Amino acid sequence: MVTVGIDFGTLSGRAVVVSVEDGTILGSGVSEYAHAVVTTALPGSGKALPPDWALQHPEDWRQVLREAVPAALAEAGVDPRRVVGIATDFTACTVLPTLSDGTPLAETSAWAHRPHAWPKLWKHHAAQRQADRINALAHERDESWIHLYGGKISAEWQFAKALQVLEEDPEVYAACRRWIEAADWIVWQLCGEETRNTCAAGYKGIFQDGAYPDEEYLTALNPAFGDFARTRLEHPLSQLGTRVGSLTAEAAAWTGLPEGIAVAAGNVDAHVAAPAAQALEDGQMLAIMGTSTCHVVNGRTLSSQIPGICGVVQDGIVNGAYGYEAGQSAVGDIFAWWVEQGLPPEYLAEAEGLGETSHELLSRKAATQPVGAHGLVALDWMNGNRSTLVDHHLSGVIVGLTLSTPPEDVYRCLLEATAFGSRVIVEALEAGGVPVTEFIVSGGLKKNALLMQIYADVLRRPVHLAGSDQGPALGSAIHAAVAAGIYPDVRSAAAVMGRREQGSYQPDPARADVYDSLYAVYRELHDHFGTGPDKLLHRLRRIRDTAAV
Amino acid sequence: MVTVGIDFGTLSGRAVVVSVEDGTILGSGVSEYAHAVVTTALPGSGKALPPDWALQHPEDWRQVLREAVPAALAEAGVDPRRVVGIATDFTACTVLPTLSDGTPLAETSAWAHRPHAWPKLWKHHAAQRQADRINALAHERDESWIHLYGGKISAEWQFAKALQVLEEDPEVYAACRRWIEAADWIVWQLCGEETRNTCAAGYKGIFQDGAYPDEEYLTALNPAFGDFARTRLEHPLSQLGTRVGSLTAEAAAWTGLPEGIAVAAGNVDAHVAAPAAQALEDGQMLAIMGTSTCHVVNGRTLSSQIPGICGVVQDGIVNGAYGYEAGQSAVGDIFAWWVEQGLPPEYLAEAEGLGETSHELLSRKAATQPVGAHGLVALDWMNGNRSTLVDHHLSGVIVGLTLSTPPEDVYRCLLEATAFGSRVIVEALEAGGVPVTEFIVSGGLKKNALLMQIYADVLRRPVHLAGSDQGPALGSAIHAAVAAGIYPDVRSAAAVMGRREQGSYQPDPARADVYDSLYAVYRELHDHFGTGPDKLLHRLRRIRDTAAV
Repeated sequence: MVTVGIDFGTLSGRAVVVSVEDGTILGSGVSEYAHAVVTTALPGSGKALPPDWALQHPEDWRQVLREAVPAALAEAGVDPRRVVGIATDFTACTVLPTLSDGTPLAETSAWAHRPHAWPKLWKHHAAQRQADRINALAHERDESWIHLYGGKISAEWQFAKALQVLEEDPEVYAACRRWIEAADWIVWQLCGEETRNTCAAGYKGIFQDGAYPDEEYLTALNPAFGDFARTRLEHPLSQLGTRVGSLTAEAAAWTGLPEGIAVAAGNVDAHVAAPAAQALEDGQMLAIMGTSTCHVVNGRTLSSQIPGICGVVQDGIVNGAYGYEAGQSAVGDIFAWWVEQGLPPEYLAEAEGLGETSHELLSRKAATQPVGAHGLVALDWMNGNRSTLVDHHLSGVIVGLTLSTPPEDVYRCLLEATAFGSRVIVEALEAGGVPVTEFIVSGGLKKNALLMQIYADVLRRPVHLAGSDQGPALGSAIHAAVAAGIYPDVRSAAAVMGRREQGSYQPDPARADVYDSLYAVYRELHDHFGTGPDKLLHRLRRIRDTAAV
Repeated sequence: MVTVGIDFGTLSGRAVVVSVEDGTILGSGVSEYAHAVVTTALPGSGKALPPDWALQHPEDWRQVLREAVPAALAEAGVDPRRVVGIATDFTACTVLPTLSDGTPLAETSAWAHRPHAWPKLWKHHAAQRQADRINALAHERDESWIHLYGGKISAEWQFAKALQVLEEDPEVYAACRRWIEAADWIVWQLCGEETRNTCAAGYKGIFQDGAYPDEEYLTALNPAFGDFARTRLEHPLSQLGTRVGSLTAEAAAWTGLPEGIAVAAGNVDAHVAAPAAQALEDGQMLAIMGTSTCHVVNGRTLSSQIPGICGVVQDGIVNGAYGYEAGQSAVGDIFAWWVEQGLPPEYLAEAEGLGETSHELLSRKAATQPVGAHGLVALDWMNGNRSTLVDHHLSGVIVGLTLSTPPEDVYRCLLEATAFGSRVIVEALEAGGVPVTEFIVSGGLKKNALLMQIYADVLRRPVHLAGSDQGPALGSAIHAAVAAGIYPDVRSAAAVMGRREQGSYQPDPARADVYDSLYAVYRELHDHFGTGPDKLLHRLRRIRDTAAV
């Protein structure tokens, strides 16, 4: 028997067909989103978008069902009748307004030309003002839930994005009947019924202790927002790994899968990767490292004393534990940014001659130098800071440049900056009473041995690697196996179907000592630019935004 | 009648043949230094050099006399008998140990294999520890001269470099009979006699009010250093533009010039450029902008209240005024550093297609954006800070980077950073009572129209351009005309032979307003990293130096 897992990413969706006996990935298929990330003009109408917007097209998601699933089945060479369940995971918070039947407003002729009718991708960053007010009011009223999100609700999440719709296009807001995570919307497409999963509701929807923020609070935020949760979010929640329905005939036709097979509750891409990497025990931090990094770790207790953590949700990663989430807004994106600035012609020639990518070339050149020899420290805030400062108006800083600084030194200091960023998160968790004993890496960046060793040295912890390059999709397939009743719960499914690579990166005490001194510099820069009274980076951002008008 | 001026730069020497009637440059010739800047291994012995060293080979300087002067004469098509005088200028403080007859120790078989026997180029930065002690002791003893150098003697200057020789190779120090500026050494080669000029002695040799630092002070610095000035520097000083001797038969043979013509006192490359640009009136600041920038401006009064100014010397630029000097350790070098990091392939292709240099391409792309739109501010300390902090252990900082920052934005912020650096100097002078009313640019960077407009806007002052691309060499030819008795003084010679370009860059009030807000950010960074209690950049440098061992 096999299951299908589908991971909906930022630029594409990937489906895998997985053996429930041992977790082997038998086949996979990818579907690139035709509209990718919509940042400048609406599809169709061509209507221009303001800065910091990031939208997606629902049709691109459906296309994954039609394209990637059949491709995965074909590659696996598996009779579709052997598929017993399907599960999905999605970027989050990616959220959209729909009619009562789940039709995206963006796909109605009445609203397609209105930017706010479209799904807002996780990295839509134009709702910061709303987030600021959400946070200020929550602290003013001492709402208990605010402390479970490190004291800050992100501008990326459901409430800030919804409030932006209300305040910037009240007609779209009025037409919106359901405000739903794409993670749950795609499940609606599969099983024909609205469902909501505990993970997205907890981490992105401020659902805590059985309830959303109350009407009094929401009314104080904006009188027209008072009934938002009741009218547009409220729905019974489904636990992760549970069967929420059966594949409809329509979805069966799209995917080539048998009608009626088990459909699992929706899930979030980061969290679903934990069982795939066998990172479900308390203290095992999974870092999904790609363009950005998401950290998830389970803890025994509920701590509301962790500043700027993305969130803690009971049963948020796996039933029976408190799931903590944190993140870094850009990681691989920062390394790519540096490479995109260009490299000296002789470097490019060398890389071509050796058949290396630019990243491999720079990593190789940077790997031989002693720790600290480049004299550089950077702040990894080129896309803001998600944890622990939760501030999208921050920006990147590089310190220590000299006329003899070569490109590989800047590259290495950027690698290190992201490791320091992870260390800030680990230290915040431990200071809040959540132990982090092991660091497990999933995602594309685990291939960079220099980067992995830097993380081991900076964190003074062993770094292990997830065994699959398709962690989220495999994680979804694991959830599908539970939903199909093959395993009683996600832990037991993960024990069989999850994967780790052999070996690990061990911290070197001498290198770790030098990193401690560099990290001290990083912390000073972090505090000066991130939490100091000066707010210089905010001022610079305001100057930029005023100038660019 | 014509004169010959020779400018000894960092990588080459240039000679010009100039009409004394109107300052027209009739011909010029260049001689590249075969050994360029010696930073890693001694010529001949191949002995390795420590970090931060920068030496030169005296033979390269003689070669300029043999090669560049005849080439200039040939290009001018001038009968050598029409040449009535010759004058030279040199980088400073470039200084060397010699025997009593002027023979460089580096050219003796006994000492050629000893690094400290070699001429130390201005940018030899390995004597910072000596400079630190020179400064600390001067303040402790409240030496009056220290305040005329902004409170700090540079590690680049005569005393720090000499003390380094004494303390690191006392045998070389003992063998050294004369410790002489290359500016004066080259005159020795021309006229066969040792001379010393007021400019180099004042700015680089701490000669003030008729004396060098006294023996008691020098003995306190190091007991073996007590007689340094008396035994190795002391010599009557020659005013700028005076005739100090006649061309020897040997030098006539090298150059092809008539024996016996007037040889002018030595001079420093920056200061000699002032008459060439007609920047001799009080308040006319000349900025010689190339790899680094040197600022010179005359003032009516002697102010010792200007922190970190390179120096103020009576008659240091022209007789009858107090000559103030300041500088930026890297300017064009910073822009070149950025270009050397590489550019995206499509940029390189575009530049090639348009026949542009990378600098022209980036300037053009950056020129169209509104001031402040890139959201960046940098500290221009990639080669330390010469004025007003006088700290070679500082390094560069870039703040405000985002994932959408393109190469031209970084480039523009680096251009602006150097303009802010100049503004700090201008403000320090004015706060000290030395008005700066006009900014006149000489040197290679004056060709960059974007850069010149940025300076006008940042400084809120008109920016004028020197008329000759060969300012120092022309300035030397002006001094040669005075030494030859054609003009009574440098002012009257400059009025006829000096040059300005038509037109100027005028500040735009709206742009200047935005630059005020960016400059405020620059000042905050400047104070935090440069003068704050934290000394983070120093710590980073120490980590680097420890790691690199």
